[in-house]
Parts: sequence; structure tokens; C-alpha cells
Amino acid sequence: MSHNSFGHLFRFTTWGESHGPAIGCVVDGCPPGLALSEAEIQPFLDKRRPGQSSFVTQRQEPDQVRILSGVFEGRTTGTPIALHIDNQDQRSKDYGEIANSFRPGHADIAYEWKYGVRDYRGGGRASARETAMRVAAGAVARLVLGGAVRIRGAMVALGADTVDRSQWDWAEVDRNPFFCPDPTAVARWEEKLSGIRKAGSSIGAVIEVVAEGVQPGLGAPIYGKLDADIASALMSINAVKGVEIGDGFASAALTGEENADEMRMRQDGMVEFLANHAGGVLGGISTGQPIVARMAVKPTSSILTHRQAVTKDGENTELRTKGRHDPCVGIRAVPVAEAMLAIVLADHLLRHRAQNPGAPEVARLPR
Amino acid sequence: MSHNSFGHLFRFTTWGESHGPAIGCVVDGCPPGLALSEAEIQPFLDKRRPGQSSFVTQRQEPDQVRILSGVFEGRTTGTPIALHIDNQDQRSKDYGEIANSFRPGHADIAYEWKYGVRDYRGGGRASARETAMRVAAGAVARLVLGGAVRIRGAMVALGADTVDRSQWDWAEVDRNPFFCPDPTAVARWEEKLSGIRKAGSSIGAVIEVVAEGVQPGLGAPIYGKLDADIASALMSINAVKGVEIGDGFASAALTGEENADEMRMRQDGMVEFLANHAGGVLGGISTGQPIVARMAVKPTSSILTHRQAVTKDGENTELRTKGRHDPCVGIRAVPVAEAMLAIVLADHLLRHRAQNPGAPEVARLPR
Amino acid sequence: MSHNSFGHLFRFTTWGESHGPAIGCVVDGCPPGLALSEAEIQPFLDKRRPGQSSFVTQRQEPDQVRILSGVFEGRTTGTPIALHIDNQDQRSKDYGEIANSFRPGHADIAYEWKYGVRDYRGGGRASARETAMRVAAGAVARLVLGGAVRIRGAMVALGADTVDRSQWDWAEVDRNPFFCPDPTAVARWEEKLSGIRKAGSSIGAVIEVVAEGVQPGLGAPIYGKLDADIASALMSINAVKGVEIGDGFASAALTGEENADEMRMRQDGMVEFLANHAGGVLGGISTGQPIVARMAVKPTSSILTHRQAVTKDGENTELRTKGRHDPCVGIRAVPVAEAMLAIVLADHLLRHRAQNPGAPEVARLPR
Amino acid sequence: MSHNSFGHLFRFTTWGESHGPAIGCVVDGCPPGLALSEAEIQPFLDKRRPGQSSFVTQRQEPDQVRILSGVFEGRTTGTPIALHIDNQDQRSKDYGEIANSFRPGHADIAYEWKYGVRDYRGGGRASARETAMRVAAGAVARLVLGGAVRIRGAMVALGADTVDRSQWDWAEVDRNPFFCPDPTAVARWEEKLSGIRKAGSSIGAVIEVVAEGVQPGLGAPIYGKLDADIASALMSINAVKGVEIGDGFASAALTGEENADEMRMRQDGMVEFLANHAGGVLGGISTGQPIVARMAVKPTSSILTHRQAVTKDGENTELRTKGRHDPCVGIRAVPVAEAMLAIVLADHLLRHRAQNPGAPEVARLPR
Repeated sequence: MSHNSFGHLFRFTTWGESHGPAIGCVVDGCPPGLALSEAEIQPFLDKRRPGQSSFVTQRQEPDQVRILSGVFEGRTTGTPIALHIDNQDQRSKDYGEIANSFRPGHADIAYEWKYGVRDYRGGGRASARETAMRVAAGAVARLVLGGAVRIRGAMVALGADTVDRSQWDWAEVDRNPFFCPDPTAVARWEEKLSGIRKAGSSIGAVIEVVAEGVQPGLGAPIYGKLDADIASALMSINAVKGVEIGDGFASAALTGEENADEMRMRQDGMVEFLANHAGGVLGGISTGQPIVARMAVKPTSSILTHRQAVTKDGENTELRTKGRHDPCVGIRAVPVAEAMLAIVLADHLLRHRAQNPGAPEVARLPR
Repeated sequence: MSHNSFGHLFRFTTWGESHGPAIGCVVDGCPPGLALSEAEIQPFLDKRRPGQSSFVTQRQEPDQVRILSGVFEGRTTGTPIALHIDNQDQRSKDYGEIANSFRPGHADIAYEWKYGVRDYRGGGRASARETAMRVAAGAVARLVLGGAVRIRGAMVALGADTVDRSQWDWAEVDRNPFFCPDPTAVARWEEKLSGIRKAGSSIGAVIEVVAEGVQPGLGAPIYGKLDADIASALMSINAVKGVEIGDGFASAALTGEENADEMRMRQDGMVEFLANHAGGVLGGISTGQPIVARMAVKPTSSILTHRQAVTKDGENTELRTKGRHDPCVGIRAVPVAEAMLAIVLADHLLRHRAQNPGAPEVARLPR
Repeated sequence: MSHNSFGHLFRFTTWGESHGPAIGCVVDGCPPGLALSEAEIQPFLDKRRPGQSSFVTQRQEPDQVRILSGVFEGRTTGTPIALHIDNQDQRSKDYGEIANSFRPGHADIAYEWKYGVRDYRGGGRASARETAMRVAAGAVARLVLGGAVRIRGAMVALGADTVDRSQWDWAEVDRNPFFCPDPTAVARWEEKLSGIRKAGSSIGAVIEVVAEGVQPGLGAPIYGKLDADIASALMSINAVKGVEIGDGFASAALTGEENADEMRMRQDGMVEFLANHAGGVLGGISTGQPIVARMAVKPTSSILTHRQAVTKDGENTELRTKGRHDPCVGIRAVPVAEAMLAIVLADHLLRHRAQNPGAPEVARLPR
Repeated sequence: MSHNSFGHLFRFTTWGESHGPAIGCVVDGCPPGLALSEAEIQPFLDKRRPGQSSFVTQRQEPDQVRILSGVFEGRTTGTPIALHIDNQDQRSKDYGEIANSFRPGHADIAYEWKYGVRDYRGGGRASARETAMRVAAGAVARLVLGGAVRIRGAMVALGADTVDRSQWDWAEVDRNPFFCPDPTAVARWEEKLSGIRKAGSSIGAVIEVVAEGVQPGLGAPIYGKLDADIASALMSINAVKGVEIGDGFASAALTGEENADEMRMRQDGMVEFLANHAGGVLGGISTGQPIVARMAVKPTSSILTHRQAVTKDGENTELRTKGRHDPCVGIRAVPVAEAMLAIVLADHLLRHRAQNPGAPEVARLPR
């Protein structure tokens, strides 16, 4: 049991605080023989990196990852892969206020009660900076899954403003600073988030991640369910307050007839589902359909407006959070959500292989 | 790693199929010295038991639990507690259809691809019958948490029909067959669900569970977050497709100002939160506020209408599910959700004690 | 983490006390499709069963195992396998002495300090009766390993009287009540142990277990070493005080030249080792050579001679243990040791498959 | 499940290869508030460091540890502690021979079969260099245990030459290059090991570690036994082939009367044991007596004499291992064994606290 590790067979452990000398992780369980270098990881980190638009924090971190172990002559060896990123922009500032009082919506007061001591600089361990290592580990997970599996994420709602799904264009996602898949929403979101940013406020978001090409059979009843692990993985991301698979909360309003994902045989022996309300998971096990998950990200707790708070000494106070913050943390959560989905799938792929060596890799019948 | 165990320090492992001779679980990690007998467990099983109203399956199962180990002279001994329920009403019937074809929305086809063999009788291992053991283990978890912690659940939406929160009355929950907390909704729901049942259809639901009296400090960053474990616990329940903590998906539409749970000192040194958007968890750690979680339950997949399906041999077919089914599985999921929340909290209480022996049990400052 | 589970991918959890209504275990992670019935398990239980010669306890337990889940139409389904044995001969007796005082060499006082409560009847959870479930789980593990792997055990020393290895005959093991492989030792041991039994005394033993046909590659650095897991598995057996792999403690007295297991290529591309000082494990990983492990079993602590002891109330006392006991618990530990070795190997086979799907199953070069 | 992590609640994960840029570990689960700096760790690393006498490898490694996370203002914060040591003396040399052939007694061939790829430089991951991180993590574990627990190790046999226990002097251990507790043996060992070193040979050893001041109640039945975890911990150290607790293999030759550790009440209510054949553990649980464990270390496999071996391509060859090696790896295993014992105890202390919060910290009766 570890509070800083995720996964079972493909497992990673992260360490590091926002303003410590470095952050890092150890990826354990990666099969041997995979081609891996920093170049395989860096592009994903760049996607998450701060300072890339006016809509994300202006902290400057090159986030250059180094591989310190587990790779020899360009290939993984089956031994643990240590990934390391030096922290650069630990801007010196007066942390007096944050050291002695607890910001609403932040983990400050919870850490105080649990530990009695915390590295308050930049949020310490509770900072979303930790998610850089998830993205790095996720890049390794993608290698484990192989090229047939494609994992992509998008922001589908900025506050209450939801994308028009009929306009969905994956190519658009990389063209705007929001990972927004709907070209018609981008201008609206720019205007809206600019206003929020200038007001020193923040807003929530909904992120969707989709994995295509996943073989059937990943996951397991009862407490090894693929969707339960996805839920845990996404809920563990900073600021996430809700997780859905497939139709999610909308499925509560459906009838059994509406919700059924009917099946037909294709000529080639492959099973075709006529809908995907289930989001690619039945009974906790993948069906070969796209795996679809969404998560709700709350608005950044760091805002410029004064809020009522309390101090370490038990006094009332008022706080506003100065400093460089994301007006919508949901944006940078997109590559993190992709990474977590990749990690869950890689872990389950290895588990599946262990106990079901003869299982088919495609959704064909008869098996 | 086990696919049939949940929890780390308070850990339970379930076994058994819907139509096997029995179902059971082993609860491991329960502290010694707690007063435990079947009488502590049975009332929770009775709440979940089938056959209690026309709105749930008519399968007759007394669900009498027996304690086979781990208790001596009425007290837990710290050794594993084996709980056992004999299956009674394994109605003999022709399983030919279900044996050779895959019901939409059910785990059938996923099991086929994963295992190539399955106990299809009544859904086998994928049956919600397994949740009886969660409820039994949950009763033990409540003892671990002690009397100060109160865990209650309610159904807050039947299909799209949501309760009026201004009418919330916990006492009402035990007075109607829906665990509905809103007296003004009960008659509507009765009419609605009667119609659905008679039509051989089904409907989804939303369940809310609340834990009051939970001490601050339970949970841990980063992958031991209390809310991530709750998400995993609830998502592992049959038919659940979404999970929320606190404001959940609604928080995506809030601004940082709206979402902040401001704090004030009370005269007695206790911290008072002015709102609970967070649902009692900050940074993955409990704050002493009520822990609030919701889950979306999809409509029962077993319906009387024909749906397109496929056979084991790769042929098209049409299926309708005869037999005794719940028109809304959400109802009986209420005690299961309560149990899972109790189990997560008991597990985290033990974890917290291990590493933070001096931490305070109340939300007081200075610590 | 569980104190009553062993293994990771092939994992079993035991429960039950010596004089409770039953004992049982849940085997989790067994691959689907294996032919399994009680008949596969019972012969191993019979080998361990009490009451079979004058050299073991006269408690009468048929130890009839029942499979309560995880098997359908004679095949494992991949879901948890619950195994159940009713306790029969819970002879009623006065437990006053053992309830209130602590027998030297027994776990009594350690349980008292840890738990403050214990089921003292027949040793409760600390009784070697628990090992019946290891033997049952071991039978399942053998199926996972398949017919090519042969696991056998023998008693190689009764007290200080060691077998003559030049006389080793595996067939002899099943012909005498000691699992002794040396026909020349049997008569000596009979005489010796008869004397010990009549004197109400007891004696220790050394057990050796050997697994042949194990593929290379099982195990892993650094904390997943096959030999470390074997050590843990054997040391967890009641009364075991020492564990060796290969030459074990004797290797401390060797030089590097003596200890080297030199290698030669056979005509058929297989690697031949010229010795097996290593006991089949290098760097924590199997080499294809026979895996050889030994364990030292201390003398039964229950003896008829009075020994100084203390009571629950902190008074001095003297104790002698009446009742039915094994004069040499090492004898019945032989099938238990075999079972534990099988379980470790099955677990590692699954782990190996997960992360090294292309690894060879034989010790051939080039790989 | 991780092959590179050890422990459950106090858990560490190591990474790094002998000739990679660095080695490191992440210590997870350390309670908050402990005073920790590099100065707390370095002395233990210095004890293990190569190059300190002619009896150990001449590789020069300062082994300066850096703490990269988990400590703030000199105190642990409860978040993961990353420890980092840069590798310095990665002497460039021709690895052709070792790259393409497999040294007898080394992990080379086992890695080949398992992974098909390995970092052969200096043994890569299989090098005992990894044990530096165990020693570092062990220093943190000692802090968790607190000052009342004293853990010390000694070499008790060099080859077949065993210390005279009547001469045991812990102070002597730090005065000679062997960690030998018997002043009368030191000169003999110096002469013997000098000869072995000059001959390019090597020799095995037996190491004993003792923990005093351990509270009763640590450990747990059945698969959480303290001695089983110690066995696993010690067996996981490079070159270890056997592990004993208390009298170990010698107990096999004892009668029940001889082996009984009788008990008496002291005036102050403490229980006094009249012997410690058990080595401080009964039923897998500590009794408050000193915990005594021994391990057998095989002779270093790297020797200057030619041995028959095989190549990656399946050809016969002969190998001798040039380079800087320890003539007796047992020497430097002493601080490693101490560290592993500290880690096991720290892990069990946290586990014990979790489930038995009211258990006594001393061996007193009535409890």
C-alpha cells in the first residue's frame, strides 16, 4: 500500500513538491524491449507545460525530463524507470500569509490536521505540479499499449458552456489553447476566459477522454473493474469532483430500452455495437468499443477576491491568493487525464495477460 | 493485487455466484475487541434483501448471514472474519438462451471475451447478488468507525425526476420503498415505477450517501485520496456509471468565488465551514465536514422488450430477459453505497492511525 | 495489504480457527478453463490429515473439502474459488488453564499483547490447522503450473539424524510415515520418535522441497525475488525457524570456485549446469534447474513436561500441555511446504507472463 | 504489486543500475514530524561504502546522499522522501566479454531468459550497488522506530570459521574491517581473507542482526508474520542463500523441553523469558525479547579463476572476472542486513498501530 503509487503491474510512484529541488517518478513494471528515450516523453510534457498561453499559469518551467534508469541502449530493460525533472522557477517570495493561514478550497487545512507540518511553498505536495510526472508516466504507458490504441482528450465544457458535439473535430483540439474540439466554441471561450482571468476569478470545466483500439477483456470483476480504476485515476487528479463512464449521470434518466447497446455480427465475424451508452465497459470489462470517460474540474481555488479564512493559530482572517495561477485548471488537466487513462489501460493489459493468456485481442465471435 | 478484494488495512474479499451454493466474504484487518454478532449485520442485509416490495426483484432470499470465524465470545479477535450466506432461491429454469447468447448491457459478452467460460446462471459472478456481502462487510466497517460516525443514503432521482432538497427528511427515507428523502416525491415515484414495471421496462436513478461525524485527516495525497477511493468504491457497484463528490459536475459551472468553502472560527476553537461545495474532502483528505457523494445508476439491463443481440456462435439473435428483475436497481443500491462508503472510511481510519498517531480527532485550531 | 492473504496474482486468503465451525480459503487469480473438482484437492489434504499414524496427532478430521464458487461445469471460471472444510472433532474439554495462562513456545502471549483477546481453544487462529487450507490452495496452484512442473517434499532430518543423500529414493517417501526418502533411516526414526512420543516430548526436523520442470525467468529483481518469496512462504508455516535455498548455510563455507555452477551447451541448444549450488535461482530468477529449498521446523511446543510459565493476571505458574499433539510437527509440514512452493511458483508464473510475454519457456540459447 | 518496492505502510522503492547516472529510492509512508537530514543517513552509507579496506572492492564512490523531497525545514512532512546518489566511479572499460557471455553464479543468464535485454555494465540492476539505497531507507526506518530500538549487526562466520560467542563484544564490531564481534577471531580472519583476496578467490559468510527494545505485538498471523517478512527481507539481499530466526536450523535438533523459552514474572510486572530460542518472535509476533536473525552469504561469484560458461549465442566459453570485487561480500552486507531489519520493524510498527491502537508498548502483565 502506498499513497504515492498508482497501478499494480504497471505502477508508478511520484515524489516531489512544487518548490523543492525537483520532482520525479519511478515507473515499475514496464515490459522490457520497448524503444524509449526522453523524446518519447517530452511532447506530452510540453502539452501540459505552464506558460503557453494567457489562459494558463505564467510560471516558466521547461519541464525537461531525464531518464535515470531502466533504459539501456535505447530500450527498456524491465527494471524501474526513474524519471526526473528539475524545478526551475521556484520564484522566491514571501510565503508568510500562506504559511500561517489556510486558503479556502485548498488542501492547506486538511494537511495541517493530518500532518501538522507541510511544505506550504506553492502548495507543496498538493500542487498540481505533481501531475507533470503523471504525464511522463503516461507516455511510457502509451508505449506499453502500442500503436493500435489511441488516447485523446478534450475540454467539453468551460463552465456551463458545453461544446456542440455535432461540431466535434479532433484536429481542432490541437489548434486552440483550450483543447476544445468544437471550432464554434473557441471564440466564445476565449472571450469568456479572458474576462475571468482579468477579474482574478476562475471557472470550472468538463474534460472528456477517449481510448480507441482497446482490446476486449481488460478489467475484471469485482474490485478490479476497469471503470472503477478509471474513476479512481481521474478523481485523483487535482480539482476533480466528478467522474463518468459512457453516458454517466445522463444514464440515470434513461429507460432500459434506450440504454441497451444492441449488437450485430459483422460479415467479418466482428461484433458491432449499435450504440455506446456503456462507454466501452460492461461488468467492469472492456468490450472493444471506445472507452469514454469524463471528469468535472472545479474552478481554481486561487482567486484574487478576498475570502474568509482562518489562521494556524485559530484566528479569523481574509485571504486573496496572489501569484501566477490558471484561471481554468481544467485546461492543463486534459493531458493529465489522457495520461491517467493510458496508465490504467496499460496496467490492466498486463493483468489481463497474466491470467488470460489465450484471450482474443479483437471483439470477434465465436471467440 | 486481487480482483475480488477491496480496501487495504480494512480489507474484504468476496466470493460466490448468483446460483452457486453460497456467497461469502472474508473481512480482514478488523481491530480486535469489537462487539460483533450476526445481529449487528443482519439489519443491513434485510434493508437490501430482495422481495420486499413490488418495486424490487421477487427472488426470495432470507439472506441469513453466519459468522464462521474471527469472533470469540462475542468480540472480534483481530483474525479474519468469514461471513457466509447460503443461496436458497436458485430457481431451476432453462438457461439455454442466456447460456448461448449475450444480453445487451450485461457483462455476458465481456466475460466471454475475457474468460471464455462463465457461470451464466443468474449472471453468475456478475450478478448484483455479490453486493449482499458488501453490505455485510459494511456493517463491520461501521463498528470500526464507531458510533460517532453516521452514514446514510437516499435515492435523490428516479430517472429524471429529482427530489426537492428543501423537503429533505431523513426519517422519510425508511418509510417508503425507494429510500426517498422527499415525502412529496414518493407518490409520483410510485406511479412512475409501477408503470415502468408493468411495461417490463426499467429506469435509472441517482443515489446520494452522506457520512457525518468523520474526523479530519482521513485520506492522503496523491493516490490514497479519500475521494478517489470513494469513486472507485461506488463505481465498482453494479450498474453505476458516474460518481460525484460534493458539488460534483455542478462545480464545473461555478466560479472560484462561488465554489470557495469559506471558514470561520467558532468560539470553542472548532473551524466552521460556511458551505460544503467540496463535499467534505480537500486535497484528498477529510475536513470534518459531512462527506457527500452521489452515484448514477443505469437502468436495469434486463427488460422484457426484444433487443438485438448476438450468440456465442457469432449469429444474430433477439433477446428479451424473462425472470424476476428490479425495475430500478438503484433502489437496492442504496444500502450497498452506504456500505462501500463505510468500508472506505474504515480503511482510511486505520491507515491514518498508522502514520499519524498524534493527529487530532476534531476540526479544532490550533491543532 | 492483508495479514491473511498470500501471493499477488495467484493469491489466497485463509480464515478460521482450530475449534471454530469451519476453516476455509478464497483462491483469487486462478486462470479460467482449468479442470478442477474436489477430487483434485482431496488427495493432498489426505496426505496432511491428522490421525494417520501414531506419529501424528490423533485428532480425527476427515478434512473433506468443498468448492463453493469459481468452478462451473468442472472448469475454473476466473472468479474466486472458495474452499471450505467443516471442523468436526472439536473435542469439548476444559480450556481453563490454556485460557488464563501462556504456554512457552506458543503464540499465546504474543496474541495477548497484540490483541488482548484470543480464541484459545486449540490455539485458535495460531493452530497449524490453518495449514490445511494452504494444502488445498496448493492443489489449485499445481493445476496452474501444469503437468510439466513436479513438486515434491521430504523430511531430511529428524532431530539431528539426517538422511543419507546417497540413499535418496523419492518412491520411499510415500512408503513411510515420515516422508523420509532414505530407506535406511526409517527404522531408526521409528524407534527414535516412538520414544519421544511415549515420553511426551517432541523433536524438530528439516524438510526439503524440490520443484522440477520450472521454466527459466520466474521471479524478478529486487523485491520480487523468487527465493525471497519462497523464504517468506516457508517461514510463514507454523514452527519454521530457518529457510535455505540451494546450498543455503553450507554455501557460507565455500569458496567462489567451489560454489560456481558452471555451464555447458548441450547439443540441442539447452544450457546444462554442472552443479546446482544455487538451488535453481540466480539473482532472484529461476534458471530452469530444480528449485531446492529447505526449512527447519522446531520441536512441537506442546509437551507433557512441566515448564515455567505465566498467567494472564501476571502470576507465575507451571504448565504441561495435555491433549493430542504431534511429537514431530515437521512430518505434517511436508505437504504444507510443497503447497507453499507450488503457490509461490504459480504466482510468479502469472507475474512473469504479464510482463514478459515473449520470454522462452525453456533454458535454451540463443534465447 | 511492485518488484522494486519493499514494505507496506513504511515502503520504499529503489531504482538505478550500477553504471547508470545515479541510483535512488522513494521512501513512502514515513510519519510526519521526524527530524531528518542527510546527516542522519550518511553515516550508515559510509559504513557500507566501498573502498574502505583491502577486504572490500576498491571502487571509489563517495555515496553522498541527497534528500530531494518529503522534508521541509528539517522535518519529514508525511509525503514521499526521494533519496538520490549520483554514481561517480563508472570506470570505462571493455564490457565485450560480459555483454556476450554469462558468468557462473551471476544473474546474467537469468536476466537474459527473463528480459532478453540487460544493462550488463557492472551487473546493472543486479549489482549490489542497489543495496546502498536500502541502507539509506534503513536510516529513515530507524527514525521511525525511535531511540528505544537498537539494531546492530555482526559477521559471525567467515567461511567455516565461526566466532566464539563467549567473546562477543559489540564494541569490537566497529574496530575491525569485518564487523566481527569476537576480538580473538579478527587476526585469523585477516590472514585468511588476505590469502583469499590475493588468490583472486572469494569466501562466504554468516551475518547476524539483532534488534533490541522492540515492543511486543509487532507482526501478525498468518501471512503478515514478522519472521516471514524478515526472511523475505534478508533473502532479497544479493548473495544470501539462507535465513534463520532465533536458533534457526539448530532448533531442528532440539527437543520440546530444550526449546521452550520459559517465562517468569518480574517484580515490576514485566515478563522475563529464561531463554530466547525463538529469537524474539512467537506465532509471527514479537514478544519484546531481542529479535535475532542470521543470514548465509555465498562467496562472491566474481573470481579470477577460469570457469566454464556459455555465450549469448549458445557457445561454450571460459570466463574469469577481472575488475574490482569484494573477496567476501558478506562484510558489506552487514549494514544492509541491519537496514532491512529496521525497515521490516518500522513497517510492522505502523501496521500494528493501525489495527491495535490500545496495545501495550511493553511486555507487561496483566496487559
